[in-house]
Amino acid sequence: MNKIYLDIIEIGGTIAFGLSGAFMAMEKRLDPFGVIIITFVTAIGGGTVRDVLIGKTPVSWLQDNTTAIVILCTAIAALLFGKLLKQLSRTMFFFDSLGLGLFTVVGIERAQNAGLSPLICIALGTTTGCFGGVLRDVLLNNIPLIFRKEIYASACIAGGLLYFGLNRTNILVEYTTTITIVFIVLIRVIAVRYKISLPASYHK
Amino acid sequence: MNKIYLDIIEIGGTIAFGLSGAFMAMEKRLDPFGVIIITFVTAIGGGTVRDVLIGKTPVSWLQDNTTAIVILCTAIAALLFGKLLKQLSRTMFFFDSLGLGLFTVVGIERAQNAGLSPLICIALGTTTGCFGGVLRDVLLNNIPLIFRKEIYASACIAGGLLYFGLNRTNILVEYTTTITIVFIVLIRVIAVRYKISLPASYHK
Amino acid sequence: MNKIYLDIIEIGGTIAFGLSGAFMAMEKRLDPFGVIIITFVTAIGGGTVRDVLIGKTPVSWLQDNTTAIVILCTAIAALLFGKLLKQLSRTMFFFDSLGLGLFTVVGIERAQNAGLSPLICIALGTTTGCFGGVLRDVLLNNIPLIFRKEIYASACIAGGLLYFGLNRTNILVEYTTTITIVFIVLIRVIAVRYKISLPASYHK
Repeated sequence: MNKIYLDIIEIGGTIAFGLSGAFMAMEKRLDPFGVIIITFVTAIGGGTVRDVLIGKTPVSWLQDNTTAIVILCTAIAALLFGKLLKQLSRTMFFFDSLGLGLFTVVGIERAQNAGLSPLICIALGTTTGCFGGVLRDVLLNNIPLIFRKEIYASACIAGGLLYFGLNRTNILVEYTTTITIVFIVLIRVIAVRYKISLPASYHK
Repeated sequence: MNKIYLDIIEIGGTIAFGLSGAFMAMEKRLDPFGVIIITFVTAIGGGTVRDVLIGKTPVSWLQDNTTAIVILCTAIAALLFGKLLKQLSRTMFFFDSLGLGLFTVVGIERAQNAGLSPLICIALGTTTGCFGGVLRDVLLNNIPLIFRKEIYASACIAGGLLYFGLNRTNILVEYTTTITIVFIVLIRVIAVRYKISLPASYHK
Repeated sequence: MNKIYLDIIEIGGTIAFGLSGAFMAMEKRLDPFGVIIITFVTAIGGGTVRDVLIGKTPVSWLQDNTTAIVILCTAIAALLFGKLLKQLSRTMFFFDSLGLGLFTVVGIERAQNAGLSPLICIALGTTTGCFGGVLRDVLLNNIPLIFRKEIYASACIAGGLLYFGLNRTNILVEYTTTITIVFIVLIRVIAVRYKISLPASYHK
């Protein structure tokens, strides 16, 4: 797939993930450096956990400055223009969904490159998509949102199954990647649009 | 020691650890995917932290599907038959204790293979036995249970000391392993049976 | 720089960091093993996260017994002589600040040795200085203190910028190291002395 096109989505996803961290940190009234750290952890958490589990170190965001600079600017923008950015919440939601799709596929492909089985690749794709938000919530002392509300991890898992389904056909890997990303984004957008969520597990 | 015998205990321990995660997640009314993730983290958390600290990556549960499938089935069983499984709580407690003993010894032996000192091996054995539960509690926004109640980490540490004590004698390593596991299980069973716990640290 | 001199500061910093963990754990009335574990995590957390991210494993405290023994003794001393040690709070604060300065510089230098860029080195130096306290607070179910109060991460970042500023001059690296440590300690001491803190981020 087009490298520049992918880079734009990845940077967009990083910004959207980072902003979700920055906003939650600001709601908890952290100081500016707290906001920066939460922005960082939310944006790079999922990929970092994946890289550490696979043993691909130094983890990817350490290896050049781009990611760090993008995240720093995101945090500073959130601190300065928070109100304004909140009005772009639809744009942000779109990028967050796109980021989720892309990060999941990136996670699957990195796990495949490490020679791991499809089941494990799906687990690591889901980790890449979701664990930034999990770490954000743990640091802010909340039960992770994705465990309670909204189709989120489920979208990653469904996307992962589709990815390996398509993999068995003759479809080019570039198409597989794109279809999977679109599929994850669609699940997420439809779920949020129609307020679909999984029922809470019942237990007595 | 007999490989199949060890595998059965390890799978039993994984199931018991996983169930303890699944039940707590269901008590917090997470959605099904939240329950699956907590089941995973509880079952593989301790070994994963150990492998990451030692640098033995990809961490062990990534390398084949067995562990992942066992845990998935455990989570699904907990979701479907939660009430029934709760009635097996004595069986579960037994496996949990057995898992604690086995995981501790596995952790000690992996640390030894990495050439680490006995003190560090005991620390990593305890980590293997206990950190799945710690991560479970952190994700569910509780202060880790093992820091507050019951003989748990203490059983691992006592077991570790016994292990290295026996190691200095002529006893075969197979016996050392078995004796240590039994010892840890016994401490835990007796402590729970007679409601023995360490006093809270006092502080003014 | 003088090796023994550095070792003394590093051990002093480990003790001070560990004590801050032990005292908070005792305030939450954990049992003695809980206190020991929190002491450990607080003292080695920052360096461990750094080593894992860089991929320098087994992480440093696994490689000899010194750190582990120092931390064990610290935890036991806190449990036995908690009241007395609390009266030394000024001494402790001094070591904590010294530890922060030293750990930050150690983190920067380890990251440089791994060939990482200055921006990333500063991020890893800050991680080394701060993440022990972050993990302590997460395990004790608090929002990390450093996100909310006091100049802490900010001192590390300012110190890191100074370090790379001095690096571009002809000043010997030994002096750069010492000046940076003193600078971080000074920022922290002045901030606490005059109750300077960053404003909470405002958000509506």
